[in-house]
Parts: sequence; structure tokens; C-alpha cells
Amino acid sequence: MTDQASAAATFDTSAVKTYLLDLQARIVAALEAADGLPFRTDSWERSPQAEGRDKAEASTLSPPSPLKGEGDKAGSSLNGGGGISRLIEEGNVLERGGVNFSHVLGSQLPPSASAHRPELAGRRWEAMGVSLVLHPRNPYAPTVHMNVRCFVAMKDGEAPVWWFGGGMDLTPYYGFEEDAQHFHATCKTALDPFGPELHPRFKQWCDRYFFLKHRNEPRGIGGVFFDDFSEGGFAHAFGMTKSVGDAFLTAYLPILERRKHLPYGERERDFQAYRRGRYVEFNLVYDRGTLFGLQSGGRTESILMSLPPVVKWRYDWHPEPGTPEAALYQDFLTARDWV
Amino acid sequence: MTDQASAAATFDTSAVKTYLLDLQARIVAALEAADGLPFRTDSWERSPQAEGRDKAEASTLSPPSPLKGEGDKAGSSLNGGGGISRLIEEGNVLERGGVNFSHVLGSQLPPSASAHRPELAGRRWEAMGVSLVLHPRNPYAPTVHMNVRCFVAMKDGEAPVWWFGGGMDLTPYYGFEEDAQHFHATCKTALDPFGPELHPRFKQWCDRYFFLKHRNEPRGIGGVFFDDFSEGGFAHAFGMTKSVGDAFLTAYLPILERRKHLPYGERERDFQAYRRGRYVEFNLVYDRGTLFGLQSGGRTESILMSLPPVVKWRYDWHPEPGTPEAALYQDFLTARDWV
Repeated sequence: MTDQASAAATFDTSAVKTYLLDLQARIVAALEAADGLPFRTDSWERSPQAEGRDKAEASTLSPPSPLKGEGDKAGSSLNGGGGISRLIEEGNVLERGGVNFSHVLGSQLPPSASAHRPELAGRRWEAMGVSLVLHPRNPYAPTVHMNVRCFVAMKDGEAPVWWFGGGMDLTPYYGFEEDAQHFHATCKTALDPFGPELHPRFKQWCDRYFFLKHRNEPRGIGGVFFDDFSEGGFAHAFGMTKSVGDAFLTAYLPILERRKHLPYGERERDFQAYRRGRYVEFNLVYDRGTLFGLQSGGRTESILMSLPPVVKWRYDWHPEPGTPEAALYQDFLTARDWV
Repeated sequence: MTDQASAAATFDTSAVKTYLLDLQARIVAALEAADGLPFRTDSWERSPQAEGRDKAEASTLSPPSPLKGEGDKAGSSLNGGGGISRLIEEGNVLERGGVNFSHVLGSQLPPSASAHRPELAGRRWEAMGVSLVLHPRNPYAPTVHMNVRCFVAMKDGEAPVWWFGGGMDLTPYYGFEEDAQHFHATCKTALDPFGPELHPRFKQWCDRYFFLKHRNEPRGIGGVFFDDFSEGGFAHAFGMTKSVGDAFLTAYLPILERRKHLPYGERERDFQAYRRGRYVEFNLVYDRGTLFGLQSGGRTESILMSLPPVVKWRYDWHPEPGTPEAALYQDFLTARDWV
């Protein structure tokens, strides 16, 4: 057996796809029960033309400047694939949310990737994952994000390089210690069977990743985040990733159930809309999945389902000391050990 | 006289600063008259510590990925400067807006800049400019952006390299042909004395620059945009830039006056909030000034004054054919020759 055949045998793309589709279905079913209204289904396919369009646009860009993205444009284009977006807007509980599956193929990894992983430059690549963001209407119910994905970088005559990535994190508008503890404890329980060092490592990684540098502020209370994970071989890495995906409903649903009917008023909605602005800033300025998707010609409406339904910006606003809004900043938007 | 002394003599930073501060004052005075309420003034200074903070954060970043920005972080930090932000929120006419002056200094141009302008890599730099974005409350009054700026890249023993950049562009929610024609004609009038080729060139540059690639959609109806401009020497380039800055009130105020009292309802406010989402997407994903500012440790609240006060996102929404909202897409959000 050649190295390539061996790698192909150990990396089972179809098993990953089967798992991801089932995960999406299970999560949507549970969320529909929690909301009382159905999610809509939007399936899409991507044609190879997308690649040509992106390249044509890249060639007409105005003169160079110290900007992100422009150099990434030409090589990162998708040349096939599709997805199933499951969406809800104006639900009883969920004001806007999406639980999206996608499976996409690219002709070459973006040039910016090759600077860090030179061995993968120019390779064909394949990615599949489930990504969700839920924005409840009730300001006492936190926004949540979860993603599990796998990447494969391929080159003729060489073994494919594969890795898993993912995680979940919670973004409350009003902090509850029991919610934070439950969310983090569930993440820890999911990871511990795969090595006791994983949870502290992925928890810190999450704190670093979901951080708004221009605000010097974390996006929320964190959770777990991992990428480039192939440790222990396919079965171990896939098993760990499945454990994270499977833990999502356990981590989030009890919190949503506790908070979804708490009474609130205009003050709380206003603060929620203001804080949602930070979510937009993070996702559009920093988030890898969002930017990789937009830059590679991904499906914009599915990618931007992560953005909140109603958002407000106001200048240099700070909560009054001693208020619940100030408590969010002081007690929750800080890297804490919750378990 | 050495080359360096000669360049320093022809490039008059203090004249640029004097002009920019006067331009800011004139624009704010005219907008206060149009609104009926005063702008607030927020002066700020930047300490060299900002540089250290950015570098510490960059060093804790999670493993590399094909992402914008990360590679730019370390070298682009500011190490001094300040600004005067003039702001209005909840005005009679302007729901949110800023007319900001800033003058900032950096220790070295970002690494990403050097890929395109290798001769400037690692140079100290200085930038000053006036940047404004105005979001009127009335959905029939367009959002507008104007910016004039100059950059100087310096190196011991070599002549400083300087250039001007700027422009203005209009983003209507409901299109009016006479507004579009007036705005573009005013831009043309401002540029024509400096060469008849400038307006078509800067108009097309604007159409290319203010374009949301992930939507395949222009941000608005354009205007003019230029960068890296030093043609004809300092007096000519500065004169051209001044002419653009001076034209702003002529270009925008008559439009604001015509539209600010038109009656509107919830439908128009809702469409305005939806379309404002595109403004956010452009500014956070593509805009050079925004990203350069955020990545270089600029003053976040001043930079993000460009973001609208209330914004909505909804999934895969399209206007009904034959409506005024559909007309915006068909007749205005397309590269047209308006003069």
C-alpha cells in the first residue's frame, strides 16, 4: 500500500460527511422544539464559474495598499461544492439563526496560507463543516456559536494532509455565573476523554481567538476553539471533533430554556443591540471562517447568517457603574476559569 | 541643497495640517446649520504605549491561517499623534455622523505595504487627514463619505516619499437622478482644473474601490477616489486634494436640504436599516482606512463613527420588482456615467 492509499484509507471523508449531516439534523430538530417554529431549508450548489468571477474582479482592483484580503483573492476561489442552510428568522425564541452544512472544493489554498504552511501551497483543498450562530430575541439569552469542520489539502503524488477544527463559544448580553459554568463544564466533559490537557489548551485558544483587538475586549465568555488538529490519527481526531459537536445541545439548550421567557424591556433590548455590534465587528474584521468564505467566493447569505438581526452603534458609550450592563464587562468579559 | 532638503522644502506638512483643520471647521459649521444641533468635540492624543500593546497581542495569536490582518499587526503600530473628532448623534437631521481630523505617526509601514511598495518597507510614516461619514435619519437622504489625507514615508538619508489620497462617494437608499448628477458633476468641476483626465480616472477608481465583491454590488453610486497621488509635484497634488475637500459641501448639502424633510414611514426606515448593513460590510471587510486604523492601533471609536446607528440583517432578501427599493438596485447600484 502506498503512503497515499494509506492516508486515504485512514481519512474517511464520507464518514465525516455522514456525521455532519446527522449533527445538523439533530441540532435543528432540538432548536425547532425549543422555538416552536420550523427552520427553513435552503440547499445550494456552487458552479465552477465562481472562480472565474473572483479572478476577474481581483484583476481590476485599484492600486495596492496595506490591506488584508487582496492578495488572497486570486488563489482561494472555490470551484465546486454546495451546502444545506437551515435558517430561522423572527422565531418565537430565536430572532435570527442558522445551522449550516457546507462541503466545498478549491483549486488551490490561498497564497496567504502558504506563507505559514509552505508545504501546502497551491494544493487542491476540500472542506466540510457545520457552522451555527443563534441570536435569541430575549436579551437574557446569550448568542451562541458552534462549528466543526475538516480540511483536506491534496497534491498529486503526495499524501493528503487533513485536519479538524472547530469549537463553540457563548456571548451573553447579561451574565449569569451558572450559565457560564455549565457551558464551560460541558465543553470540558466533551474533551476530557481525549486527553486532560485538551480542555485547558482549547479554552485558552478560544479566549485568544474570540478577542477584539481594536476594543481590547473578548467577544464573550469563550468556550473552546481548536484548529489544525490531527493528533492521534484520524479516529482520535474525528472522535474528539464529534464529541465537541455532540456536546453543543447539552451546553446550550438548558441555558436557552432558563432565559428565553425572562421578562425584559427596551433598556435590555437596546443594550443587546449595542453589544451585537461587537459580534459584527469580530465576524467581519477577524473571523477566519467568515473571511475565508467571503474571500473564496463562498455563499454570502449563508456565511452572513452569523450577523445579528438588529444592531446599533453609538459613540464611546460606557455603562453606568453598578448596573447589570457594567457587570457584564467587569465580571464576564474577562478571561476567567469557569470550571 | 540635498535631495532630502529639497523634498522637505517642497512638501509643506504644516500647510496641509492648517488646511485640514480649517476644512473640518468649515464642514462642521455648515452641517450644524443644516441640522440645527451642535456637534460635540472630542480631542485625543495617542501615547507610544499603544505600540507595545499591539505587539504583545500579536504574539499570543493562535496558529496561522489564510487570514487578513494578522501579518500586518506587528509592524503597523502607531507611536504617536492625535486628533479632533467632531460628532453628532440623534441630531434633527443627522442620526449619526463624524467629521474627524487625525494626525498620526508610525514607526514602520505595515509589512503588507512593503510587498507592493518595496522601496517603503520599514520606513517611519506620518499621516494626516479629514474623514467624514454622515448617516441622515431620513431614508430619502443619502449617506455620504468624504476623505482627504496625505502620507509621508521617511528614512534617514533618503528623501521622504509623500502622496495624497481621498475622494467622496454617495450611498443613497432611494435613488434620485438629479442628486446623482449633481454629486458627480460637482466632483468633475473640482477636478477639471487639474487635468481633464482626472475625473474619469478617479470616477472609475471609485466604482472599483467601493465595491462589495462578496455581493457583486457597488456600495452606492460612487463619486471619486484617488490614492498614491503625487503627480505634478506638491503644489499641484495638494491643490487638487484641496479642491476635492472644498467641493464636499457643494456636492452634498443641496442634496441633504432637498431630502431631509421628505415624509417617510416604517417601510423606508426598514429598507434603510437593511441597506446600511452593506455599509457595515464594506467598511469592516474592505475599507482601507478602517482596517489600517484598526490594525495600526488607531482610535477605535473615531474610526467606527462610520458605522450606522441602527442596522438590520435578514436572509436572502430581495425587493419586489417594480418597487422604489428595486429601482435602487436596477437604476443606481450600477456603474453609470452620471455627467
